[in-house]
Amino acid sequence: MAEYILQLQCADQSGIIHAVASGLLDCQANIVEQAQFSDPDLTQFCLRTRFETDMQDIEAVEAAINAHVQRFNPRLQLRHSNDHRKVLILVSKFDHCLEDLLYHYSIGDLPIDIATIVSNHEDCRASAEAHAIPFIYLPVTPETKNDQEQKIIELVAEHNIDYVVLARYMQILSANICQQLSGQIVNIHHSFLPGFVGAKPYHQAYERGVKMIGATSHFVTPDLDEGPIIDQDIQRVGHSQTVDNLVSIGRDVERRVLTRTVGLLAEDRVFLVGRRTVIFA
Amino acid sequence: MAEYILQLQCADQSGIIHAVASGLLDCQANIVEQAQFSDPDLTQFCLRTRFETDMQDIEAVEAAINAHVQRFNPRLQLRHSNDHRKVLILVSKFDHCLEDLLYHYSIGDLPIDIATIVSNHEDCRASAEAHAIPFIYLPVTPETKNDQEQKIIELVAEHNIDYVVLARYMQILSANICQQLSGQIVNIHHSFLPGFVGAKPYHQAYERGVKMIGATSHFVTPDLDEGPIIDQDIQRVGHSQTVDNLVSIGRDVERRVLTRTVGLLAEDRVFLVGRRTVIFA
Amino acid sequence: MAEYILQLQCADQSGIIHAVASGLLDCQANIVEQAQFSDPDLTQFCLRTRFETDMQDIEAVEAAINAHVQRFNPRLQLRHSNDHRKVLILVSKFDHCLEDLLYHYSIGDLPIDIATIVSNHEDCRASAEAHAIPFIYLPVTPETKNDQEQKIIELVAEHNIDYVVLARYMQILSANICQQLSGQIVNIHHSFLPGFVGAKPYHQAYERGVKMIGATSHFVTPDLDEGPIIDQDIQRVGHSQTVDNLVSIGRDVERRVLTRTVGLLAEDRVFLVGRRTVIFA
Amino acid sequence: MAEYILQLQCADQSGIIHAVASGLLDCQANIVEQAQFSDPDLTQFCLRTRFETDMQDIEAVEAAINAHVQRFNPRLQLRHSNDHRKVLILVSKFDHCLEDLLYHYSIGDLPIDIATIVSNHEDCRASAEAHAIPFIYLPVTPETKNDQEQKIIELVAEHNIDYVVLARYMQILSANICQQLSGQIVNIHHSFLPGFVGAKPYHQAYERGVKMIGATSHFVTPDLDEGPIIDQDIQRVGHSQTVDNLVSIGRDVERRVLTRTVGLLAEDRVFLVGRRTVIFA
Repeated sequence: MAEYILQLQCADQSGIIHAVASGLLDCQANIVEQAQFSDPDLTQFCLRTRFETDMQDIEAVEAAINAHVQRFNPRLQLRHSNDHRKVLILVSKFDHCLEDLLYHYSIGDLPIDIATIVSNHEDCRASAEAHAIPFIYLPVTPETKNDQEQKIIELVAEHNIDYVVLARYMQILSANICQQLSGQIVNIHHSFLPGFVGAKPYHQAYERGVKMIGATSHFVTPDLDEGPIIDQDIQRVGHSQTVDNLVSIGRDVERRVLTRTVGLLAEDRVFLVGRRTVIFA
Repeated sequence: MAEYILQLQCADQSGIIHAVASGLLDCQANIVEQAQFSDPDLTQFCLRTRFETDMQDIEAVEAAINAHVQRFNPRLQLRHSNDHRKVLILVSKFDHCLEDLLYHYSIGDLPIDIATIVSNHEDCRASAEAHAIPFIYLPVTPETKNDQEQKIIELVAEHNIDYVVLARYMQILSANICQQLSGQIVNIHHSFLPGFVGAKPYHQAYERGVKMIGATSHFVTPDLDEGPIIDQDIQRVGHSQTVDNLVSIGRDVERRVLTRTVGLLAEDRVFLVGRRTVIFA
Repeated sequence: MAEYILQLQCADQSGIIHAVASGLLDCQANIVEQAQFSDPDLTQFCLRTRFETDMQDIEAVEAAINAHVQRFNPRLQLRHSNDHRKVLILVSKFDHCLEDLLYHYSIGDLPIDIATIVSNHEDCRASAEAHAIPFIYLPVTPETKNDQEQKIIELVAEHNIDYVVLARYMQILSANICQQLSGQIVNIHHSFLPGFVGAKPYHQAYERGVKMIGATSHFVTPDLDEGPIIDQDIQRVGHSQTVDNLVSIGRDVERRVLTRTVGLLAEDRVFLVGRRTVIFA
Repeated sequence: MAEYILQLQCADQSGIIHAVASGLLDCQANIVEQAQFSDPDLTQFCLRTRFETDMQDIEAVEAAINAHVQRFNPRLQLRHSNDHRKVLILVSKFDHCLEDLLYHYSIGDLPIDIATIVSNHEDCRASAEAHAIPFIYLPVTPETKNDQEQKIIELVAEHNIDYVVLARYMQILSANICQQLSGQIVNIHHSFLPGFVGAKPYHQAYERGVKMIGATSHFVTPDLDEGPIIDQDIQRVGHSQTVDNLVSIGRDVERRVLTRTVGLLAEDRVFLVGRRTVIFA
């Protein structure tokens, strides 16, 4: 038996689930897990199905499904459930998110392939190499920024990258790369958005005397810190915590949210619907 | 347009979703929200679907679906989504869970009908009457226990009760009523099960010096405190909390979990599968 | 034995704890619980002590302590631990926070005296009267706003009110009353500040697609939504929740945070230090 | 200025805080942070004080304090706040707790010295060596168990170890070593104690259908899984999680609780009082 995961998204209308089910029936498939949601505002239909079938040929399976659903003109993705999403990680100097991704990857908790790690600094080279992952040093200056982003876009194409993960990458991406890789770049913001946008959120949080600090993962769009939110988490803090304590506690929240987000992406549980996301967790 | 909620549960096999979708297509229905899960151990298939259709006649809709699914011999429940589940509440002296249910009910947060409130004490009569809900005083002694339970069973039949909610009801139900109303009785246990089964869990928790206390809602089975868990929650506590503080904090956790549980039941989001539950939250 | 709670706040310097302890020793007091914190930025010293002594005369106890600490020129508050803080509640139409305060008050969970409930609407009169608490209807128009606030200030003086609790009070207080009752007014903001300041935060949260919604209690200052934060809490939400669902979930977070906040105030656990608070929970 | 942390524990009685404050006054010390609690059942007094003074000689400071407090016969510990607690880590094959401790240690988040890592397997040698920490392989068989524990006791003495941290160490310690190192050994239990004591807690949790799984850190006593609890945390789970998922989620809860626990110990925030702990967090 082969197991597949199907993601399907299109304008909502009657008969989509029947059409998908008809396609799966033609494959004599058994549905293991299925979730569906129709966004009431944008009337976007989102479906995730995990199913088993004797058909080993993924193209034949996709053709069988498409025979029924193509009239809905959907965005359709099909994969073997044990195939891995391909990821490119961008990092700067702070390594806590990278290390957490690498650890979960190394023990088999994150079903992804990390094609390469790109950084504008050399600091994380050893971490990459310890996991036998290619490390590419692409320094950024105002003059080289465009070239560097162009190189990233080429790497995405070359390695068939599904997702670019910004693991505390301290450069603001241009509108150009955000649009070219729309829906493929995810970021961890070290704040509970929409509070404390911008720089030094832990200093802001300390000054404001908040009792919880948080982190937010989101898709990257040209509007800085305004991309669709994927996940958030918080940690309770108190008056005795210094800014350094908040930074330290924040690191753990950031890595937890980002690793969980990459896990959701790895299992095709995330749909992008306008400015919001649909998550079948 | 009428909106319906369908719950369907049966032995897992290929083609169920297609059959349901075929039935819905015959009704020209549009699926708004659908979740499905197949328990891998018991191979039980669970499906919840919320859909819209022009067909106002629920029996015609059910017949259309049944025409396709009856060969799977499912347990099938269909209702208008704005019909309310009918609830009978059992309570003793502590009123915090009852009051929270009544408050959320009164402001329209809990889409249920409370047919009657039964108690072995008179304490909560005023609360019931303040909400114009019939209050029935059924005292319990070793001699009257069977009669009292028989009366409850009759009330359930008379009012077409969907769920009996034990809102801190301090009597142990007999195996007889547990079996007759199997899958219909839910309880709030004032502990994070399976820790601290039995009486005085907050005293046990204090003695043990736990750093979190919790509450657990579960279906009631003849095995005391061993019924399938529906929901749980916890609250952090510390060394300075006395037993009385734990009881006080516990009250808020209990009512929160029970109210949330009744909300899940009210929206047909709970499936009972062997010793476990499937919750489409 | 009498039990007292002492709150002391002053500019930080060496010898304060020794001075307090000397005063308590003169009373042959036994310290049950003590917490101290010095804010490193504002160098404000905060101390909360709960102690037992045979001295029943609170003025004698205060004199004994003052003999040692008056040279630090502190803000000092001493009370019998079983005396209650006096509270005035302001409410508009939404009653969920008020009802939760009243419920916890009625079962003895909140050691406060509610001197009166003031509202710009008649809706909550019945709730107040059900608990035998005076209800004062003070409608607000642009013309009467000053008079209404003046009346509140008079009530605070008349009843020796410690804290004015805004339980979803939908009027913006003037700078005048905020300054006159500085450090005495607390509000529940239906958002996880500093995100979503201003009106309709749940609509904002829905549009932004957040995965958690929260509530924040804070002291009221002339800067709207910018007062020092006392407590915060959040609840996880998902894509399927509508704005109405967020409002409903938010209600429970709001009342939980506000009731907890009033409990902290009732036990003298809150210190106001510049734009931040020190909480000895 | 030198900064010190004082831990003091003794039978509760009047005058202890005054005596400590008198000692600190003799050192012209300024108290930065102080917390005190008296256990009402065991009447044990616990005090933690962080203070600054010009006196650089720790023995002189201790003598000054002792001159005032020795009549209470306390357990007293004094250290420079930037001295590090010395830790010996015991580990078997699972490395997630060890790796998390090492990561936080490496970036300066955990102010401890890891004197050595001892294991009954060779698996974690590379991790230890990557951080330049001595790794000692002490295999355990029924015949060698006593010798191995004796060797651990010798290492504790030789390196002046403050705490032995069991980072998922899969051997049950003998009553002998538990008693000899009483109050010095901490363990992470992969369950929300007291639920699911013993082996395979995640399998138990899955069978029971719990909606939250947890982890518990505790002092090790001869009563397996019954030692005083230091910290606990939980993570929400659902019906779709397999046992493997629970194990994976559990790993993150375990490491989070254990790292936080070691941080509390590193800052002298933990007191052992009978079967309970007092934590000044």
